[in-house]
Amino acid sequence: MIYFDNAATTLPYKEVVDTYKKTCIESFYNPSATYHPAFNLFKDLSAARKTIIRFLGGDIDNDNIIFTSGATESDNLAIFGSCFNKNKKYLFSVGEHPAVFNSAMELKNRGYNVQLINLQKNGQIDYADLESKCDENVCFVSIMSVNNETGAINDLEKIRNIIDKKSPNSVFHVDAVQGFGKIDLNVKKCKINLLSMSGHKIHGLKGVGALYISKGTRLKNINYGGGQEFNLRSGTINYPGIISFLKATQISFENMQENYTKVLGLKEYLLEQLNNLNFKNLHIVSDKTYSPYIVSLFFEGNRGETIMRYLDSKNILVGTGSACSSSKVGNRVLENMKYTQKQILGAIRISFCASNAKSEIDNLISELKYYLANINA
Amino acid sequence: MIYFDNAATTLPYKEVVDTYKKTCIESFYNPSATYHPAFNLFKDLSAARKTIIRFLGGDIDNDNIIFTSGATESDNLAIFGSCFNKNKKYLFSVGEHPAVFNSAMELKNRGYNVQLINLQKNGQIDYADLESKCDENVCFVSIMSVNNETGAINDLEKIRNIIDKKSPNSVFHVDAVQGFGKIDLNVKKCKINLLSMSGHKIHGLKGVGALYISKGTRLKNINYGGGQEFNLRSGTINYPGIISFLKATQISFENMQENYTKVLGLKEYLLEQLNNLNFKNLHIVSDKTYSPYIVSLFFEGNRGETIMRYLDSKNILVGTGSACSSSKVGNRVLENMKYTQKQILGAIRISFCASNAKSEIDNLISELKYYLANINA
Repeated sequence: MIYFDNAATTLPYKEVVDTYKKTCIESFYNPSATYHPAFNLFKDLSAARKTIIRFLGGDIDNDNIIFTSGATESDNLAIFGSCFNKNKKYLFSVGEHPAVFNSAMELKNRGYNVQLINLQKNGQIDYADLESKCDENVCFVSIMSVNNETGAINDLEKIRNIIDKKSPNSVFHVDAVQGFGKIDLNVKKCKINLLSMSGHKIHGLKGVGALYISKGTRLKNINYGGGQEFNLRSGTINYPGIISFLKATQISFENMQENYTKVLGLKEYLLEQLNNLNFKNLHIVSDKTYSPYIVSLFFEGNRGETIMRYLDSKNILVGTGSACSSSKVGNRVLENMKYTQKQILGAIRISFCASNAKSEIDNLISELKYYLANINA
Repeated sequence: MIYFDNAATTLPYKEVVDTYKKTCIESFYNPSATYHPAFNLFKDLSAARKTIIRFLGGDIDNDNIIFTSGATESDNLAIFGSCFNKNKKYLFSVGEHPAVFNSAMELKNRGYNVQLINLQKNGQIDYADLESKCDENVCFVSIMSVNNETGAINDLEKIRNIIDKKSPNSVFHVDAVQGFGKIDLNVKKCKINLLSMSGHKIHGLKGVGALYISKGTRLKNINYGGGQEFNLRSGTINYPGIISFLKATQISFENMQENYTKVLGLKEYLLEQLNNLNFKNLHIVSDKTYSPYIVSLFFEGNRGETIMRYLDSKNILVGTGSACSSSKVGNRVLENMKYTQKQILGAIRISFCASNAKSEIDNLISELKYYLANINA
């Protein structure tokens, strides 16, 4: 099986699975219990928080990490936990993942003043549009690090600078699911207040994520119960899941540069091979400014879904848009980038991890070539 | 290590861990993706739902199961997902777990008409109090199956009959965390609309739970995102966690009677040994009507916390109240059962699983005897 859908989920690292297997037996205690074996787990959780904060470039003594059930929960907590005033403005980019975008729509339904920032043709947010919408009434801005469909990378430092000019006290939330562990992220440099992470996108386990919270950021809980996680998130602490998430984070950060270089090589090889074939109507939604981990491309006049199914039958798995959404209703992201409906229909998404190989790309190209020449002739 | 805190969390079954290890590698795909390996996972999830519904005595063709990150999320979804009208009445027992009780308090804060049902001295709800509070305005009743601190078992069929007399169209939610897989639960017989389950309380994994939803029960989502889980719960589906939860459920239900008999034997042995010792001021908050899995007891005039710490130093782990709550502020449950503050201070909780042994109880008794005779002399 050739797996090119790493933006949807990833194969866990062996070390992650081993860590999980070990801790879920040896350290099965409830970390909120008040006997020694539980205290020890509690200490490990504190250390895990510091390690993750350090990787993000934060202040290990003052910033915090809330462990969650995944990025959707992290995003929901960041957004609904930051809503204190209906008279203020809440800004979101049109390119956000459904966990952020649909939360923004719900905020709007609840009567909050929600405004959307458009995307440029290159997939990044329209910085001028952001600037025009920033004013003293803005209190919250949520813009993702790397777009999950296109791989477009937003310039978070530039964004924070724009925000600071007119809306200096705004909370800045970043859904960093596709950037965390893959590209440089620095919460201090970009003055990020809240940053969402997911385990299973970096070869960790499903069901575990985290939310970074910078010192002094006001946040309220959105669920109710035992008050674990600093009264910001209730529910028995998933110690084995969290320690495995830490392991995936450590491996990802320690190999970030090496993995990036390797994946960039894969992307360049893919684009080169695609270009050599002189496919008519092929469009690649990527250039040097995009993350190499995600390449969106379309064959105008074809249906991406049909191509995907053909490749599936040949044991090559690629995405069509985001698998994080169970219902597909058009494509908000590519539409906002001004691609036509006809173009969008032909889109597939290739997303890499460092263990993909050029030979797998050769297979993909060969099958694409066969499909376009014969099946869709 | 002797572990008598199984109401806080349990050691996962070996089969559960093996299932997890296998599926998290072999079946790592995102179940919401649209290629074959993902479709297969989706089919497994449907089959898992039917199996769980069957164990609960529900209608496998029409009822539903939403997989969650744990019972706290299940409870929050059941409660906040059922709130449609501030003019209606919402009933909760005083004995509820914080995941339910604190959700009820939040509902009240939001202006909903929330009323509490008192407990009797025997730990069950006061059925007469419930009857007096039921009227045509009641739309939601949440009463747990087995109390997590005392093991008191509420008579759910009797409760549903009381509700039906005056509030026939009410939604009946049951937090079944301490009953699921341990005592008989029949959603059809008790006309239960919503039932919360947890994996890690039945030797499954942390971070996975479920909510049973009977046919026709109106429920709205409380988080926002990709719309997985029938648009009632967003977030990448934790397939390996869910299949492991299924495994724990199957083992628990298939061995329910045998485990119950074994644990009942342990409880009876514990009570017999305690009685033989003629401890002054010992009170056991349990009788034949309680679940054998949980025994709350107190040594009036002693501090339960101190006893717990002494036992901890001897590698015997017991609970003091619920480890599911990170901050201990009195004891709502025992107080409502009319125990005095002095009595409550002396409380410890022994909670069994089927792999505990009588020899472990002998050790516990021996250490309690030493402690009360020497340390606390």
